[in-house]
Amino acid sequence: MSKPSIPRGTRDFGPKIMAKRKYILNTIEVVYQSFGFMPLETPAMENLSTLTGKYGAEGDQLLFKILNSGDYLKDIATDQFESKKLTSQISEKGLRYDLTVPLARFVVMNQNEVTFPFKRYQMQPVWRADRPQKGRYREFWQCDADVLGTNSLLCEADFIKIYKQVFSKLGLNDFEIRINHRKLLEAVVEKADASIHFKTITIIIDKADKIGIEGVKNELINIGLNESQCTIILSLLNKQKFNLENIGTIKNALPETDNAKKAIEDLSSLLDLLNHETDYVFLDGSLARGLDYYTGCIFEVVPTSVQMGSISGGGRYDDLTGIFGLKGISGIGISFGIDRIYDVMEELNLFPADGTNFTDILFCCMDDSAFQYCLPLADALRTHHIKTEIYPDAAKLKKQLDYANSKNIQWAAIIGENEMKNNVISLKNLISGEQQSVSKNELTGRIKNI
Amino acid sequence: MSKPSIPRGTRDFGPKIMAKRKYILNTIEVVYQSFGFMPLETPAMENLSTLTGKYGAEGDQLLFKILNSGDYLKDIATDQFESKKLTSQISEKGLRYDLTVPLARFVVMNQNEVTFPFKRYQMQPVWRADRPQKGRYREFWQCDADVLGTNSLLCEADFIKIYKQVFSKLGLNDFEIRINHRKLLEAVVEKADASIHFKTITIIIDKADKIGIEGVKNELINIGLNESQCTIILSLLNKQKFNLENIGTIKNALPETDNAKKAIEDLSSLLDLLNHETDYVFLDGSLARGLDYYTGCIFEVVPTSVQMGSISGGGRYDDLTGIFGLKGISGIGISFGIDRIYDVMEELNLFPADGTNFTDILFCCMDDSAFQYCLPLADALRTHHIKTEIYPDAAKLKKQLDYANSKNIQWAAIIGENEMKNNVISLKNLISGEQQSVSKNELTGRIKNI
Repeated sequence: MSKPSIPRGTRDFGPKIMAKRKYILNTIEVVYQSFGFMPLETPAMENLSTLTGKYGAEGDQLLFKILNSGDYLKDIATDQFESKKLTSQISEKGLRYDLTVPLARFVVMNQNEVTFPFKRYQMQPVWRADRPQKGRYREFWQCDADVLGTNSLLCEADFIKIYKQVFSKLGLNDFEIRINHRKLLEAVVEKADASIHFKTITIIIDKADKIGIEGVKNELINIGLNESQCTIILSLLNKQKFNLENIGTIKNALPETDNAKKAIEDLSSLLDLLNHETDYVFLDGSLARGLDYYTGCIFEVVPTSVQMGSISGGGRYDDLTGIFGLKGISGIGISFGIDRIYDVMEELNLFPADGTNFTDILFCCMDDSAFQYCLPLADALRTHHIKTEIYPDAAKLKKQLDYANSKNIQWAAIIGENEMKNNVISLKNLISGEQQSVSKNELTGRIKNI
Repeated sequence: MSKPSIPRGTRDFGPKIMAKRKYILNTIEVVYQSFGFMPLETPAMENLSTLTGKYGAEGDQLLFKILNSGDYLKDIATDQFESKKLTSQISEKGLRYDLTVPLARFVVMNQNEVTFPFKRYQMQPVWRADRPQKGRYREFWQCDADVLGTNSLLCEADFIKIYKQVFSKLGLNDFEIRINHRKLLEAVVEKADASIHFKTITIIIDKADKIGIEGVKNELINIGLNESQCTIILSLLNKQKFNLENIGTIKNALPETDNAKKAIEDLSSLLDLLNHETDYVFLDGSLARGLDYYTGCIFEVVPTSVQMGSISGGGRYDDLTGIFGLKGISGIGISFGIDRIYDVMEELNLFPADGTNFTDILFCCMDDSAFQYCLPLADALRTHHIKTEIYPDAAKLKKQLDYANSKNIQWAAIIGENEMKNNVISLKNLISGEQQSVSKNELTGRIKNI
């Protein structure tokens, strides 16, 4: 029998990793809920008709497809024996690729029951048949929140507050919230008289972090822009505090087009809604975010003391549910990248030390008769919310204490013949090494107070 | 564009359903953790070599298989164009079918890092390509806990306590924990001199609930048992309090075979470990549980005031990891059936009334200038753990209050010109209908205290 394995690009999360992941997920969930977001879960499997065509040609390639059940080749002619032809005939379902398309699908299916504005959060795994590499997985979690059915910039303000609260609760204080506005990008590209290249230009400037200003300029020249067009576009590539003065400078540099007016108006209103409290927030002209569907403010959060890409992103979109035939529902959403947040927190040693303690106290029985002695004590501790286990065998003490250490258990309650005779417990603090004899009545208080 | 849908047998869980599901899941998780169980999560996709052959021929048919990526038909001869031949060549991965095989696979892969006894819980969806019907889904959650690497009956005692705690915390007090021992079944079948039919007999008596005693007898006769053999087997089919007297009666009725001795010894020890506190617990001779791999105590929990099958089951197995080449690791596990527990609680109206309140207070702005007024108040409430949202548009009050009602929000804080002029908030209790004017400083206290 060969040693079992798991598919490439997937992971098991053992107890210690789970504890840390739960810590991140719970923190995000509590903040989402404090702003009135409600949970939604959708099935792992979606109809391929729901998924296909929503993520571009490349995305379609990356969908995991599920083989139809039963005799799936029945009624299929042998001249269809070619991967591209056959797929749609033998596979009707695929694994969800993100949480945004399922949200749109849910809202369209339930449009008569949903009350708008619809504020939902969703924390579930997604699957992509990407080539696995460091930090890129075929199964990974997304933690999204979206508001559907309102154009209000209050949503933008709320999401900026959510960012601040989540990262400050996580103890991750070295970060920048970078914002930009799609229409600001459009206005600048208009000014450079290069609107026909808009999409390509956003892709190029999005790479500024990686290829530098010279790199951006070279690529702009490669697509046919001249020196003065480049200068206008490159003027975008700076990051500045998000404040009234900087918005004013941008305003003065742009012709008064519809795009420029709308972008400046939105950014000014957002600044007011934030009461000008914009610590952590930067206006980043190079922030473009590849996704086509963004139409307004866009966000990205980047850790500043660790070399790492963005740990969250999002933005406003005009017409998410239009892909399923329900027009006129605009919205805005963000997504936290759990895997990267995990890596940053690990690198900066930000996880709380007691976060992986699953058990507070372990009873160690020195002989079989000790179990009867322990059991009511263990029951009593649990009613006081003290996580308690009894080592299930009367093994050697060393073995039992090794077990406690491997689980980071702070307390061992050792019960042998002497303890039972004297009606006490030998309570050992496994961190300090101290051991003392305590009465049954003292036990709970001793664990709770120290 | 056709209306979108989801695959048959799958479900969306909207906010109100999610709130109730989370309530059940959290309750189980807290109890699992209080007994020292630690979380594990495994990937949705497993290699088919891990899954195939573990659930019987029928189970193999019910595995959802994932189509290989890319040009999956490349290098496959056209004479393989037949469902049964082709599947293993175009599909390497499948969706997990339960949480037990992934546990075994995890422990074998990580045997050098895992400390035994290994107590893990796992709450994740599983997928089965079953024919969907009422109460049977193609995607559903399992909530398992297992202890691997000990024969101690303390585990059995702990699981019975876990059952009692979970259901009492859920307010579901009408239930029976039914226990039996596989070796007791074997001993009775031995006594009836019908051991060659053991497996078939367990399947037959497992159906006693559905087909009745006469039905069981007919099926036993059909497989060739005579009247006196039937009488011995049918003597099993009763349910009695789990106590010393009833164990004694069973003991006296059986010849002293190895199986009988082991079963009686285990049940007696378990009774001692439970300190004879066996309210809710019944010894049910008809409980067989189909799964081949059980070798010791078996459990089932059944609600008694609602017509419904078992809402939890489990048992001891001798050699779970043997399927992956690691011998000698015995263990025991249970699984809660979330969907059925949900249905029972819904039917008995056991969900707490305030369980679906996601937001405590909604600010309703009567004009755009009110947002600035509300925002710091909302921030302050959130720091006091009051879930707060601001309706994002200055819509008509009725529309805003309808929104609050649809989300079960208790409080509305209405801000218009007058409130801003007088530096107050009009606070409306949406349950009682009362409305009063409160100062900014009073607001938090008013929400917290009432």
